[in-house]
Amino acid sequence: MSPSDSDLVEDLLRDERIDAANAEALARLHASDPVVVDVLPARDAIPGYRPNLVLTSGAPMPWEEYHGGQRDALIGGALFEGLAATREEAIEGFASGGIEVGSCHDYGAVGSLAGIYTASMPVFVVTNRAHGNIGFCNFYEGKDPRRLNYGCYDEGVHARLLHVNDVLAPVIGEAIRREGGVPLKPLMAKALRMGDELHSRNAAASLLFTRELLPAMLAMASEGHGDVIDTAIHVADNDYFFLRLSMAAAKASADTMIGVERSTIVTAMGFSCRGFSIRVAGLGADWFSGPAPITEGRLFPGHTEDEITWMGGESPITETIGLGGFAQACAFSLQNYQGGSSEVMMERNLAMYSITASENPDYLIPVFDFRGTPTGIDIRRVLQTGVLPVMDVGLAGRDGGQIGAGIIRAPRECFELAAAGHVARYG
Amino acid sequence: MSPSDSDLVEDLLRDERIDAANAEALARLHASDPVVVDVLPARDAIPGYRPNLVLTSGAPMPWEEYHGGQRDALIGGALFEGLAATREEAIEGFASGGIEVGSCHDYGAVGSLAGIYTASMPVFVVTNRAHGNIGFCNFYEGKDPRRLNYGCYDEGVHARLLHVNDVLAPVIGEAIRREGGVPLKPLMAKALRMGDELHSRNAAASLLFTRELLPAMLAMASEGHGDVIDTAIHVADNDYFFLRLSMAAAKASADTMIGVERSTIVTAMGFSCRGFSIRVAGLGADWFSGPAPITEGRLFPGHTEDEITWMGGESPITETIGLGGFAQACAFSLQNYQGGSSEVMMERNLAMYSITASENPDYLIPVFDFRGTPTGIDIRRVLQTGVLPVMDVGLAGRDGGQIGAGIIRAPRECFELAAAGHVARYG
Repeated sequence: MSPSDSDLVEDLLRDERIDAANAEALARLHASDPVVVDVLPARDAIPGYRPNLVLTSGAPMPWEEYHGGQRDALIGGALFEGLAATREEAIEGFASGGIEVGSCHDYGAVGSLAGIYTASMPVFVVTNRAHGNIGFCNFYEGKDPRRLNYGCYDEGVHARLLHVNDVLAPVIGEAIRREGGVPLKPLMAKALRMGDELHSRNAAASLLFTRELLPAMLAMASEGHGDVIDTAIHVADNDYFFLRLSMAAAKASADTMIGVERSTIVTAMGFSCRGFSIRVAGLGADWFSGPAPITEGRLFPGHTEDEITWMGGESPITETIGLGGFAQACAFSLQNYQGGSSEVMMERNLAMYSITASENPDYLIPVFDFRGTPTGIDIRRVLQTGVLPVMDVGLAGRDGGQIGAGIIRAPRECFELAAAGHVARYG
Repeated sequence: MSPSDSDLVEDLLRDERIDAANAEALARLHASDPVVVDVLPARDAIPGYRPNLVLTSGAPMPWEEYHGGQRDALIGGALFEGLAATREEAIEGFASGGIEVGSCHDYGAVGSLAGIYTASMPVFVVTNRAHGNIGFCNFYEGKDPRRLNYGCYDEGVHARLLHVNDVLAPVIGEAIRREGGVPLKPLMAKALRMGDELHSRNAAASLLFTRELLPAMLAMASEGHGDVIDTAIHVADNDYFFLRLSMAAAKASADTMIGVERSTIVTAMGFSCRGFSIRVAGLGADWFSGPAPITEGRLFPGHTEDEITWMGGESPITETIGLGGFAQACAFSLQNYQGGSSEVMMERNLAMYSITASENPDYLIPVFDFRGTPTGIDIRRVLQTGVLPVMDVGLAGRDGGQIGAGIIRAPRECFELAAAGHVARYG
């Protein structure tokens, strides 16, 4: 039986048990209440984290499969953490298993681009108060296009990562604890009314988050805390700062759907250097993988299409819960960043209603008269309509660093394999 | 010769000297560079301000003409300033001339709603760095619907106004001075990409302004300045805070057009309890007045249309420079506040291009693919097309206080009288 066979898809679409399961999965998603409660090093925050573990984006793979920028990023992570003194030593360590590679999602985390985590790196701890589960994401490195998560590692990258570890994260963690945690859903809902879609644009959310920490940070300043001024300005001035909180909130929300028997709703989307993969609620922790995503990009001046390289990315967890590309009609400013007129953005956004099973009750699109964002990708509908999920992402260059931004589409193969997996499991 | 006569309008439209004058006026407007440089009491900031002077919105009128909420607001201003001990004493003072009434615009200021200024009230000092002129606006009183600018005066209003005078304004002024002034145009341009139209919605601009003051406020906190925490939170938490800066920036920008001979571009719009008035560039400080504006409102629960009352308003200075109703397609969130679908908002906004003489080079509309806002109302085009300028405003109730928000239109009569004035002056 071919999973692309339209009879199979029709059968799945007629199955009312799946409809009921999807309703249950989406009820869990919509009830989610993600709250950032702390900032801690990965080794202290993430259950099972080992000192020699380096996490990266995408479905799990053995070390040998990683290549290009994602491999370089893993090596950079090992060097940053002091797990190896040289590049060669790092490669040897990974090959021998002395340095372990893990998949972010297996640890409740999500990775931006290459998505490198090491033991000392601080992570946002986001508790889903409605369900008790936790999502993690590490920190934005700053505006410099050379970043570890874009496959770069040098003295500048090292210094900026250390600054995050030693200066920014402790101050932000202290401010979050003083505020007793910051509920993220109301803030994200507001940011969608202020031009963000919470994937490629987080300018408003970063400011709104600054506002939440303002009382604590002013109090800390008044107590003579020296690093607070620089930190506050870093948060307020980095339009991308909030993305990591959006990702952690999305992870803590989406994970609640895992394990809802028979559900055909997507619970994660992401990619490695080897291809794009999805997870589906009724199919647990399994990944269904296809080729690299399909792209329409807009490059920074001086770069060309053939430079685009895939080194991983799990920020499409935001699209998984109805943000990013699924809310791009909130963020027309991205026209200039990722290409496309506002009309095209609205059409792209509207098309997502044809593959989703609900309209978000909290995340609303002002230009659509506050219609809820299309939320909960149903693999059946993707196969039925042929409409592929759209994502707003940054684009990495083969020499490392960000070279542009654009729209990507999940490949159809992932959904075909997932449908086949569903049939194999549930008949 | 009737000013509504279409031959007259056609003659004016054919006059190339007017086109050239309008181009000159708009070049001045677009070159404007408003920067808030200080906060000072009106008596110290505004040239010619006298201790017994109370300013209010709209074309100048003798005391006897003021009625209803605007009269109450003037009386409240006199009481707040200590110019009278009782309501009766205040009325007597105004009647005898012991207390003077003035028109905000005659002092380089603009008034929100009733627009009351007294000598001790702090004002933002906004310098137009391109032209050297200055615009002023006083402070937002806070979220309580009972406010002096909505015709209310009681102990609560008094206490909140004093808090502005004694706590908020000194801290904000100090922070502005420490930052060496804050250029407003870049911030306003950014706010338009974040869901503001800078008249009825200023949520993003208020946050962006907070961000500009953050270094200074954190430094002040670290030096033990006790009032800075409350003040910072007040600025960040009051979505309307920035309106007064938007108004002062608009005033400092629009005033540069006054006195451009023959120009038919509107330089100010505003109203009092007696009606709506406009000023036109080539006709100097003269006002051309018609009846009250035409309204389509959305009232807060529990209020009815017949409660709407006119007690003044000069915030349409924002529409005069291409913001507010002329940028409403930036701010779809106002659907819920003032009524109307996003489609209606886009249509209303687009219609304004038919009566304006330029597209703003700095204030852009993302949903229109970053087309510049329609800027510079040409009285000739208003008369030719019959399209009346649209404004986003708050609505006052006859018992004082805000009871809703909505769209108003400037009455045609103002433009007919201005055209007649133009013919009388220039032939």
